[in-house]
Amino acid sequence: MNTLQSFKARSGEPFGAPLPASTPEQVDAAAVAAQAAFASWSASTGAARGALLRALAAALEADRDELVAVADEETALGPVRLNGELDRTGFQLRRFAEIAERGVPFETTVDPAVAGPPPAGHPAMVRLRVPLGPVAMFSASNFPFAFSVLGGDTASALAAGCPVVVKAHSGHLVLSNRVFGLVQQVLKAQNLPAGLIGMIQGGGSDVGVRLVRHPAMAAGAFTGSTRGGAALQAEANARPRPIPFYGELGSTNPVIALPGILAARGAELAGVLAGSISLGCGQFCTSPGVIVLLKDPASDAFVQHLTTALATQKPHAMLTPGMRGAFDAGVSHMAAAGAQPLLQEAGSAEAPRPFLAQVDAVNFIAKTELREEVFGPSSLIVRADSVAQVLDVLHAVGGSLTVTLWGAEDDNADTRALVRGATAIAGRVLFAGVPTGVAVTAAQQHGGPWPSSTQPMTTSVGDAAMERFLRPVALQDAPAWLLARRGQPC
Amino acid sequence: MNTLQSFKARSGEPFGAPLPASTPEQVDAAAVAAQAAFASWSASTGAARGALLRALAAALEADRDELVAVADEETALGPVRLNGELDRTGFQLRRFAEIAERGVPFETTVDPAVAGPPPAGHPAMVRLRVPLGPVAMFSASNFPFAFSVLGGDTASALAAGCPVVVKAHSGHLVLSNRVFGLVQQVLKAQNLPAGLIGMIQGGGSDVGVRLVRHPAMAAGAFTGSTRGGAALQAEANARPRPIPFYGELGSTNPVIALPGILAARGAELAGVLAGSISLGCGQFCTSPGVIVLLKDPASDAFVQHLTTALATQKPHAMLTPGMRGAFDAGVSHMAAAGAQPLLQEAGSAEAPRPFLAQVDAVNFIAKTELREEVFGPSSLIVRADSVAQVLDVLHAVGGSLTVTLWGAEDDNADTRALVRGATAIAGRVLFAGVPTGVAVTAAQQHGGPWPSSTQPMTTSVGDAAMERFLRPVALQDAPAWLLARRGQPC
Repeated sequence: MNTLQSFKARSGEPFGAPLPASTPEQVDAAAVAAQAAFASWSASTGAARGALLRALAAALEADRDELVAVADEETALGPVRLNGELDRTGFQLRRFAEIAERGVPFETTVDPAVAGPPPAGHPAMVRLRVPLGPVAMFSASNFPFAFSVLGGDTASALAAGCPVVVKAHSGHLVLSNRVFGLVQQVLKAQNLPAGLIGMIQGGGSDVGVRLVRHPAMAAGAFTGSTRGGAALQAEANARPRPIPFYGELGSTNPVIALPGILAARGAELAGVLAGSISLGCGQFCTSPGVIVLLKDPASDAFVQHLTTALATQKPHAMLTPGMRGAFDAGVSHMAAAGAQPLLQEAGSAEAPRPFLAQVDAVNFIAKTELREEVFGPSSLIVRADSVAQVLDVLHAVGGSLTVTLWGAEDDNADTRALVRGATAIAGRVLFAGVPTGVAVTAAQQHGGPWPSSTQPMTTSVGDAAMERFLRPVALQDAPAWLLARRGQPC
Repeated sequence: MNTLQSFKARSGEPFGAPLPASTPEQVDAAAVAAQAAFASWSASTGAARGALLRALAAALEADRDELVAVADEETALGPVRLNGELDRTGFQLRRFAEIAERGVPFETTVDPAVAGPPPAGHPAMVRLRVPLGPVAMFSASNFPFAFSVLGGDTASALAAGCPVVVKAHSGHLVLSNRVFGLVQQVLKAQNLPAGLIGMIQGGGSDVGVRLVRHPAMAAGAFTGSTRGGAALQAEANARPRPIPFYGELGSTNPVIALPGILAARGAELAGVLAGSISLGCGQFCTSPGVIVLLKDPASDAFVQHLTTALATQKPHAMLTPGMRGAFDAGVSHMAAAGAQPLLQEAGSAEAPRPFLAQVDAVNFIAKTELREEVFGPSSLIVRADSVAQVLDVLHAVGGSLTVTLWGAEDDNADTRALVRGATAIAGRVLFAGVPTGVAVTAAQQHGGPWPSSTQPMTTSVGDAAMERFLRPVALQDAPAWLLARRGQPC
């Protein structure tokens, strides 16, 4: 039997007993069980969906201490962050519960018949949205609660009426299995089919690829690397019947800091930015990896402040040895491409030291290697001659989850141009604070143009995340009984 | 120079003078000009967008007689249909004008800051939608007005704030060039950049592929065959920076007629269905290509009525000789796969005779060939033993723009199951009438699961069509000046 081993992130020692990898038959069985659960779950009431999501939140919280302890061993993210993340995960489950209870998945557009010939005349039309079907959900390494077994993808898919099969992340296998144990208890207590939320696990890509290829799956949801996401998206497109694939991938999250605000508050902002770069050892999809500065004395001073502030940061161990190695490789790659290091110190085998480098805008625009995400506490300062060159830098980045713009308090041609350049490439544009930390709100947008997302019209965080798993259907001249059921046939 | 020749659909004779194919340089120039126009058009007001769309509608209507005459030569669709289609096209342009004027593209979700720590506390967020950028638009053969140069894709993209480069369909080149001449006049009269609406033309796929590959293009919109659409979608995905590709592809549009309604109204419905099958020589994406009947004496009688009614139909010439040949090949293919012909007569070189065949549900489910769309006046009756087998037939179809369900007036287990089965595979479910004819309304959904659409969450007809060309962006802690502009930086 193929087995999987979890490791302690801080020491690299084995953690827990070996776990069995899912066999091909088990992957297929999970997909088939999800499809079987779809019939009843797609017809479930908002109240039933809400009850499940609330019970899942309560189960997480009831087991909080044990879960956080396990997660901390496997990820080294620390109890403060992990408790906060568990809070957020419960909050998110309850938020989607409320959305389902309010009836949002069942909202309809009613368009009564208009007498007369077309184009003005038309039959009675009602537009509703139906759940897609079973969702293949790929957990992220860096959010063991909020983007994992019971994270936002699972919560929004369940609220929409879709079963989920989770591919557990190998970076926190013991935690995933413990959470999945809670899931099974809740499903049983609520008399729901066990297949409504399934889980599979495997060391290589074969298990996940098999899941995406399975005819029962109706959509994919993924958070992780551009390479991994692109490969799974290609699988989704290559199926005899392609399915939507929602991937949230790599992002460099440029921060543009204008001289005016740096002259006034440079030292303070340098401290804030250093904290954001090294937060969670830089393992955030919204970690600020590119800092764009105009050539100005205030920018020079800011670079000094930032270098100093970053040197005092002590990033903890990375999530996995693989990521630790990839960080060093990424940093070397960047230096080889011409980035001039400002802060570069050898870290430990588990924990890196923050890396800061600088490059001219012309080089940044010319070299793809400089624009690739380095996952970890690394950032690259790009020095531009003009606002026009800042816009060229943004255009070269092309797609990002976020762009942060500091110093745009006044309405002028420069700030307008920068806002336009930022909105053109990002899903979220910040005018204060740092991009790390993604609020779970009605107006959130977590997803931008490629490579940050495979479907930039959608978000994986916030209320609109549920829309990914609903498909519009128009009913034409629907009979009275069906309209009385608000278009829900069961 | 590479030249293109239009032909008269009824006789196959050359129509008009040869036209130059777009050179690679011209394709690139159109894309670059569209990108240049994007800066101002994306920042235009709803009033300006409305004014352009209304002027385009007026220009079409002012040239109606000449345009319909040219279209009729190139398509053989006849003046009644073509005048109606021109009406619809003008209606659609004005409808999107009204949507732009109402401010729909600028609608925002405002989410004020909530004090306190996350997850409940969060910064001020505003969610708006920004236009994607230049759209590569591929005209359809079968709607020379409504899905061509000034069709729904162009209208909805312009309303969203996106320039368009149209790939003219080689089936109605003279018409496309004439309409494009009107476009250029209107753009000039409104002092808008000529690149806002561009047009290219070519005989093979190279011109369109070059357009989709061009870095300036931000989205693709296509109406046509599954094969052509899939090839262009693959190009969109294979770009260094993939872009959304909205393809409306092949569809068999099953009609399920239950014995009860056939016993009561079989003869009448057979006449209606025969008209729908042969309407426009069957060259509709919603042409009913599959008719599902239960084994029942009322079904037997209906088959007789339908065969008789269809035999009286006189389809006109097909759009192109290529389509005429493909129809014969498709019909032969179907017969070779075991469909038993009920009506099969030799047509002329230009106009086919209606084809009707019958097959058992078991064979239909077993053989992919029987489920492929035959573009033209062809339909396949599928005989099922039970409602459960009808559901299997729908599942085998997998994706369709429409499913029509006749006889579901009563709420019972069978009708509920059939509605569920129909909504699971279709974008539109009809309970009366025929699927040909797609109303331009708020609640329309024209797009379903693969192969009927590459993006089943979107529609290419109806108000929601504009959503394809808008991308959400969240502004976090936006300055007052930007909020006063409702998030529009220019």
